[in-house]
Amino acid sequence: MNTKITEILGIEFPILQGGMAWVSEHKLAAAVSNAGGAGIIAGGNAPADVIRAEIHRAKALTTKPFGLNIMLMSPNSDDLAQIAIDEKLAFVTTGAGNPGKYIEAWKSAGIKVIPVIPSVGLAKRMARAGADAVIAEGGEAGGHIGEISTMCLVPQVVDAIEIPVIAAGGIADGRGMAAAFMLGAQGVQIGTAFLAAHECQIHENYKKLVVGAKDTDSIVTGRIATTHPVRGIKTKFARAMLDLEKSGCTAEDFEVRTAGALKKAVDGNIEEGSFMCGSIAGMISREGSAEEIIREITKVAGGLLSK
Amino acid sequence: MNTKITEILGIEFPILQGGMAWVSEHKLAAAVSNAGGAGIIAGGNAPADVIRAEIHRAKALTTKPFGLNIMLMSPNSDDLAQIAIDEKLAFVTTGAGNPGKYIEAWKSAGIKVIPVIPSVGLAKRMARAGADAVIAEGGEAGGHIGEISTMCLVPQVVDAIEIPVIAAGGIADGRGMAAAFMLGAQGVQIGTAFLAAHECQIHENYKKLVVGAKDTDSIVTGRIATTHPVRGIKTKFARAMLDLEKSGCTAEDFEVRTAGALKKAVDGNIEEGSFMCGSIAGMISREGSAEEIIREITKVAGGLLSK
Repeated sequence: MNTKITEILGIEFPILQGGMAWVSEHKLAAAVSNAGGAGIIAGGNAPADVIRAEIHRAKALTTKPFGLNIMLMSPNSDDLAQIAIDEKLAFVTTGAGNPGKYIEAWKSAGIKVIPVIPSVGLAKRMARAGADAVIAEGGEAGGHIGEISTMCLVPQVVDAIEIPVIAAGGIADGRGMAAAFMLGAQGVQIGTAFLAAHECQIHENYKKLVVGAKDTDSIVTGRIATTHPVRGIKTKFARAMLDLEKSGCTAEDFEVRTAGALKKAVDGNIEEGSFMCGSIAGMISREGSAEEIIREITKVAGGLLSK
Repeated sequence: MNTKITEILGIEFPILQGGMAWVSEHKLAAAVSNAGGAGIIAGGNAPADVIRAEIHRAKALTTKPFGLNIMLMSPNSDDLAQIAIDEKLAFVTTGAGNPGKYIEAWKSAGIKVIPVIPSVGLAKRMARAGADAVIAEGGEAGGHIGEISTMCLVPQVVDAIEIPVIAAGGIADGRGMAAAFMLGAQGVQIGTAFLAAHECQIHENYKKLVVGAKDTDSIVTGRIATTHPVRGIKTKFARAMLDLEKSGCTAEDFEVRTAGALKKAVDGNIEEGSFMCGSIAGMISREGSAEEIIREITKVAGGLLSK
C-alpha cells in the first residue's frame, strides 16, 4: 500500500478522510490519522477561532499528520489559509474554487496542497499552479458534487497530469479502493463510510439514515435551481426540495429553504436536515471505529491488488 | 480472461457490445463477435422484419455467437422475443422493463437471458425470474440511464445476487475493465467505445462528436420533464432541450421536441440530433476497428489484472 500519496503525506495507508463541513471535526480526524490514514478537519464556513481550536484538540489526540479542508467560497478562507501555516499542518485540501493565490505561501511553509477537482480542466490548472496531488472526485460523492463519475473522471485526470491522483466518490470498501487503483489512482478519499465511524460526532439519526440507506436512496438537489448541486439521503425534505426546484423556484427561494440544513442534519433534525452523503451509502450496513473501517478496506484492497 | 460470462456465452473475451438503438446493427455486431466479444443487434422500435433481416445479415458475416437487445417498451417486443427463439440466438439482453414473461420460453430454447438493470432491487427480481446474468449499468452510460454510478452499483449488485454480473457505464479502456473486475464483475458491456469503431455505421458527424468530446461534454436531458433521462453529447440542441425542461415544459412538449432525435443523430443531423453516448466519450480519442478496440482493452486489462 505504499504509493506516492503515502510518501508525500507520511502516512501508512493511502486513505484520506473526506473534508465534510460540520462533520469532519477533531475526534474523527484524529481517529483516522491514528489508524494510519490522513484525517481532515473541515473548515466549512466556521469562524477561524473555531477551526484553530479544533486543530488544537486534534493535536491533543494524535501525533500523526492530519490536514485542513478549506472551502474556498467561505468568507473565512483567507484566515483558514493562514491558520494552516501557523499550525504547521501536514496538508491542505481545497474545494469549491481555485486555491491558486494561497499555493505559494503553503508550499513555502512545507504544507502539501491537494485540491479537490471535478474535471480534467481544473486538474490541469491545479497541477500547473503547483499542487502536490489532486483529489478527482466523481459525482457519486456526497455534498457538493460535479457531474462526472469516478469511473470516467479518474483515468482521464491520470492521463492529463503528472502529479498523483487520489480518487473520491463511490468508494467505501476494499473493492472500490482496488478499482480506483486500477483506474490509475494512488490513493482514495473516503467520506461517507466515515459517517458510520464511532468517532464521527453526527447525531444518531444521521448515522441511522446512512446505515439504513439502500442503493436507490440517494438524491441530488440544487441541480435545477442553482449551479451547485448537492447529494444526500432521499428524505421527505430532500424530495420536497427537488419538487420545489422542478416547479421552477428561483435560486434565492431554494437557498432560503435549504440554508442551514446540513447543520440541522448533523443535529439530527429529520424534518429539515440535509443529510449529505454519497451514493455509496447503500453499501454501508454497520457502524464501526475508524480503525476497523480502515483495516477492513485496506485488507480487502490489498488482497485484491496482490492477486 | 476466462470468467463465467465467457463460459455462458461461449466467447473469448468477457466483453459485450452495448445494444444501442439505431446504432447496433449487423456489421458492428458481427465485427465484435468475430473479434472474440459478444456482438448485439439492437431491436429498438424497429419492425420485426427489419430485425430479422439484420440477424440474417449478421449470420452471413460471422459464425460466432451474437445476441439481440430487446427494449421492452417497444410495441414489437413480443415479436422480437419470438424472433430470438426462431433464429436460435445465443443470448438476449433486455432494457426498459421486466422481461419476466419471456424468460421461460427463452430458457427452453437455450437462449441465455441477460437483463440490463439499474438497481439492486431489479437485479434481485431478475435473478429470481431465472436470468443467467445481469448487466449492472451505471448512470454514466449513454442513452437511457439510471441514477446510480457504476462504482456504486456493481459491488452492491454483486453482493445481492448469485448469478454473474456484467458491469456497464464508463468503461472504454483496459483500466475501466480491470476496475470493473475489482468491483466483482465478471464481464463488461461497452457501448460508447464502439461508436468509434470503423464497422459502426453511424454518420461521420456522430463519430467526430464522440472522438472530439472532452470529459465535461456529456449532458443528461429528460431528468426534469420526463421519467426516462437520456445521456448524450452536450450539443446546442441538447442544451436547448435542458433549458426547455428547466423552463417547466410538460413531458408531452419534451417528447414532441425530441422524437426521432436519435435517428437524426445517426444520420448526422447536428442541429436536431440527440447524439447519445456515455460520459466516457471524453476518453475516446480515435477511431479503430472493433478488433483493435477489443485487443487494446483486453491487453491492458489483462496486464493490470495479472500484476
